[in-house]
Amino acid sequence: MAKKKFAKESSTIMTEMVLPNDTNTLNNLMGGKLMHWLDIVAAIAAQKHSNRIVVTASADNISFRQPIALGNVVTLTSQVTRSFNSSMEVFIEVTAEDIPASKKVMTHRAYFTFVAVDQNGKPIEVPQVVPESPEEIEQFEGALRRRQLRLILAKRMKPEDAVELKSIFNIN
Amino acid sequence: MAKKKFAKESSTIMTEMVLPNDTNTLNNLMGGKLMHWLDIVAAIAAQKHSNRIVVTASADNISFRQPIALGNVVTLTSQVTRSFNSSMEVFIEVTAEDIPASKKVMTHRAYFTFVAVDQNGKPIEVPQVVPESPEEIEQFEGALRRRQLRLILAKRMKPEDAVELKSIFNIN
Amino acid sequence: MAKKKFAKESSTIMTEMVLPNDTNTLNNLMGGKLMHWLDIVAAIAAQKHSNRIVVTASADNISFRQPIALGNVVTLTSQVTRSFNSSMEVFIEVTAEDIPASKKVMTHRAYFTFVAVDQNGKPIEVPQVVPESPEEIEQFEGALRRRQLRLILAKRMKPEDAVELKSIFNIN
Amino acid sequence: MAKKKFAKESSTIMTEMVLPNDTNTLNNLMGGKLMHWLDIVAAIAAQKHSNRIVVTASADNISFRQPIALGNVVTLTSQVTRSFNSSMEVFIEVTAEDIPASKKVMTHRAYFTFVAVDQNGKPIEVPQVVPESPEEIEQFEGALRRRQLRLILAKRMKPEDAVELKSIFNIN
Amino acid sequence: MAKKKFAKESSTIMTEMVLPNDTNTLNNLMGGKLMHWLDIVAAIAAQKHSNRIVVTASADNISFRQPIALGNVVTLTSQVTRSFNSSMEVFIEVTAEDIPASKKVMTHRAYFTFVAVDQNGKPIEVPQVVPESPEEIEQFEGALRRRQLRLILAKRMKPEDAVELKSIFNIN
Amino acid sequence: MAKKKFAKESSTIMTEMVLPNDTNTLNNLMGGKLMHWLDIVAAIAAQKHSNRIVVTASADNISFRQPIALGNVVTLTSQVTRSFNSSMEVFIEVTAEDIPASKKVMTHRAYFTFVAVDQNGKPIEVPQVVPESPEEIEQFEGALRRRQLRLILAKRMKPEDAVELKSIFNIN
Repeated sequence: MAKKKFAKESSTIMTEMVLPNDTNTLNNLMGGKLMHWLDIVAAIAAQKHSNRIVVTASADNISFRQPIALGNVVTLTSQVTRSFNSSMEVFIEVTAEDIPASKKVMTHRAYFTFVAVDQNGKPIEVPQVVPESPEEIEQFEGALRRRQLRLILAKRMKPEDAVELKSIFNIN
Repeated sequence: MAKKKFAKESSTIMTEMVLPNDTNTLNNLMGGKLMHWLDIVAAIAAQKHSNRIVVTASADNISFRQPIALGNVVTLTSQVTRSFNSSMEVFIEVTAEDIPASKKVMTHRAYFTFVAVDQNGKPIEVPQVVPESPEEIEQFEGALRRRQLRLILAKRMKPEDAVELKSIFNIN
Repeated sequence: MAKKKFAKESSTIMTEMVLPNDTNTLNNLMGGKLMHWLDIVAAIAAQKHSNRIVVTASADNISFRQPIALGNVVTLTSQVTRSFNSSMEVFIEVTAEDIPASKKVMTHRAYFTFVAVDQNGKPIEVPQVVPESPEEIEQFEGALRRRQLRLILAKRMKPEDAVELKSIFNIN
Repeated sequence: MAKKKFAKESSTIMTEMVLPNDTNTLNNLMGGKLMHWLDIVAAIAAQKHSNRIVVTASADNISFRQPIALGNVVTLTSQVTRSFNSSMEVFIEVTAEDIPASKKVMTHRAYFTFVAVDQNGKPIEVPQVVPESPEEIEQFEGALRRRQLRLILAKRMKPEDAVELKSIFNIN
Repeated sequence: MAKKKFAKESSTIMTEMVLPNDTNTLNNLMGGKLMHWLDIVAAIAAQKHSNRIVVTASADNISFRQPIALGNVVTLTSQVTRSFNSSMEVFIEVTAEDIPASKKVMTHRAYFTFVAVDQNGKPIEVPQVVPESPEEIEQFEGALRRRQLRLILAKRMKPEDAVELKSIFNIN
Repeated sequence: MAKKKFAKESSTIMTEMVLPNDTNTLNNLMGGKLMHWLDIVAAIAAQKHSNRIVVTASADNISFRQPIALGNVVTLTSQVTRSFNSSMEVFIEVTAEDIPASKKVMTHRAYFTFVAVDQNGKPIEVPQVVPESPEEIEQFEGALRRRQLRLILAKRMKPEDAVELKSIFNIN
C-alpha cells in the first residue's frame, strides 16, 4: 500500500534566461519553448513525489496572454496537487522578470499530469498527496474536477458522469 | 475588409528525427519537446494563412498516450481550421514512424490558436477560412465549440453562454 | 531478390525556421546549417525507400546563390531517384519563404547518396526505384551520369570509362 | 589593387568531440553535422585571408567512406588555396581520433568556396594567394581545374571551354 | 549614494536535468557544462542584487570530486555575499539528486564575482549587502579574504598587503 | 611503470565563433560558455597525454577582463604542463579575433586539472611530462606551486606545509 507525502515535498523551482534562439521575430519567448520548460519543471516535481521515472500524460489548456521578452529571467515553480493511483497532477506557476527595469509579472498558471512507471514503462502506484496550506487544499479539491474535464476531452468519460465538473456549468 | 483563403493553402508538413537529447530515461520523446514542435509547425500554418507575424494565444489540452521512441521519424502536419477576427485555430496531426520496422502510428491530434499582429505586436484582422473537403468542413464547424471551451477555461466567457459547447454535455 | 518501390513512396517534406544561431553576421542562413538539414531530409527519404538504417555516402557539389534570411521558413522536399545495389541517390529541392512579405523562391537543388546497412553497418541490397512522372523518369536517367561523375571524382572510375558522362562534354 | 598574402596565413585548426546528438543509430557521426563543421572551419580560413565577411558560394562533392564514432575527437584543418577576384577556394582536411585506442585516421578531404562581401553583401576583391610549400603549389594549380568543373556543374560554363578540366578526361 | 539590500533578496534557485549531450564517455556531467550553469545562476543573483546588467569578473578555483550522473536532477542555489563598489561576490551551492534512488548529495560550493555595468559596459555602483543569518554573516566576512586572494592571483595586489588572507597561512 | 611523453605531444587547438546564443545583453560572450570551451579543449589535451578517459578534477581561478564580442573568432590552445600520478595540469591560452577589423587579443590564461580513469572510473597512472622549450620548463616548475594552492583551497593540505607556495608570499 502506498504511503502519503506532503504536497510541498515535491516543490521545484527552475530559473531560465530568455536567449535569442528562444524568441520569435518580435523578440518574445516562443510559446513552444515555454511549454518545453513547463514539462521539465513539472516532471521533476512528479519525480520527487513518486521517486519514480515519470512520463507526461497530458498538458491542460494553456493560454498565453503576456509576452515574455528576450533577456527576461523566467521562474517556474511546480508542485504536485493530487495523485490518482499511478498518475499525478502538477500545478505550475510562471513569473517573468525584467530585472534591470525592476518589473516582475505572473504570466502563466498551468496543469500537467504525469504517470509514474517502472523500468519497463508499466504504470506503478504512487503516494497520496497530503495538502496543508489553504492554497494546497483548494488545488487538491479542484483536481477532481479538472481530471473529469481531461477524461471527457480525451473521450474516456461520458459528460453526464462528470458530477463535479457539471457544477461549473451551473447545472444539476 | 479581409479576403478569404482556402484552408488547404496553410497546409504545412514538418519532419523531425528523435535524437538522444530529446528523450527521457526510457528513451522516449519528452512531452515538452513534442509541444515545442507542435507550436512551430502550427505557427507556420498560421503565418501562411495570414501573411503576418503570429504569436501563440493558446494550446488546447494535449494527451500523450503513445510513447515515441529514440530514432523514430516524427511527421507533423498542420492546417488552419477557422479564423475569428485576428485569431486562427490550427489543427495538428502527428505520426511517428519506426522506419526500419515499417511501423507507423498516428500518435497525436492537437489544436493551437494564434493571433496575427503587426510589427508593434498589435492584433490585426486575418482572412476568413474557406473549408472544402468534408474533414475541413467538420473542423470548421467544431472550431466554434472549441473556442467556447477555451474562453470558459480562460474565464473570459460564462458557461451558460456557451450554446454550442453545451451540446457535448447533452443538455439544452 | 529485392522488390521494387515507386519513387514517390520515399517523398519527404521538412520545414524549418531560420533562427538567430543559424545565421552569419549578415543575418543570412549559414551554408553549413543548410547542408545539415539537406542530409537529414535526404536520409529520411532513403530510409523510407529501403526500410533500413542508412549512412551518408556522398554529397554532390552544392552552389549557394540565394541568401536565405533570418526568420524565413525553409521547405526541403526529398525523394529517391534511383538505387544501385545498396546505394540510393536522393534529390532535394529547397524553397525559402519570407511569409509576411509573400515572397517564395526556389533556392537549391542538391543530390546526396546513401548506403543502406544492417545493424552491423554492412551494406545490404535495397529495392529498385520505379519512376512514374516525367520528372521522376528524367531524374532516374540522369542518375547514371551523376554516378559516373561521383566515381571519377572519388578516383574509383577512370574518366574514359564514363560513357554516359562524356555526353555532357559533347564528345564521343 | 589587392595585395598578396601567403596561403599559410589563413591556416585554421578546429577540434570537436562527437557527442550523442551528432550521431545516427549506429553511433556514428552524421554526414550533415560534419558538413556543418567543414563550413565553419573553411569560412574562418576565408575570413583570415580576406579580412572580410564571407559567404559560402559552393561545397564540392564530398564522399564519406570512414565512419567516425561517438566520443572520437575530430580535427579539421583548413587553408585558402587560391583566390579569384572576390572568391576563394578553401581546402579542408579531416582526421578522426579514438584517443584511448590510440587510433587516428585521415577521413576526409574537401573543397569549399567563399565570396568576400562588404556590409551590404556586395562582392569585394580579395588578396591573391602566394603558395610556398610543394603541397600549396599543387593545390594552387589544381584550383583552376576544380573551378571549371564547378562552373560547368552550375551551368555557368560550357564544357568545351573547360581547357584545364578536359585533361582529366585525357582528351585534347 | 547606493542603498542597502538584504543578502537573501538575491537568492536564486535553478534546476537542471543532466541530458546525454552534457555527459562524457563515463555518462557523467562534464565539468564545463556545470561551470556554464554556475555562471548563469550566479549572474541572475547578481542581477537581482544590482538591478543592472552584470558581466562575469572571475570564477574562483572549483574542484570536482563527486561525479554527477546522466538523468540526475541538479539544483543550484546562489546568493550575493558582499559587494565592493561595482563588484559583487556570489556564493553557489550545488546538489545532485538521483530521484528514483532517493539519493541526494551536496556536490559543489563555488564563488563567482560579477561587475554591474550600464548600457555602455561602464562599471556602476551597486547596493551594499546586509547579511542576516549566521551563515550570511560568515560569508560576508570571508568575502574580504577571498577578494585578496583573487587580486593576488590576478597580480593586482602584492601578497604582503593581503592582511586578512595571511591568517590562513597562520602568519602575522 | 609509466613512460614519458613530451609536453607538446598533447598540444590541441580549438576554434569557435561567438554565436547569438553565447552572448549576454551587451552582445559579449558569457563567461560560462567560455569555461565550457576551456574544459573541452583542456580535456582533449589530457586525453592525448594519457590515452585515457579523463575527468575534470579542478579549474583554477579565472579572471575575465576583456569582453569578447559576438562574431569574434575564439582560438583556444591547450597543453599538459605536468603530471602527478593519475592527475595532469593543463594550461590553456585564449585569443579572440575580430577578423574584419584585423584585431586580435590574448584574452585569457587558465589552468585546469584532470584525472585519468579506467572504464570503471578508477584513477590510473599517466606518463610523466618532458618539457622542452623554456616556456614549457617554466610551466612545469610552476605546476608544483599551483598544485599546493589547489590542495590548500580544497582543504586537503595545511598552508604551513606548502613550501613552494610560500615563496609567493615572500616568507620563509
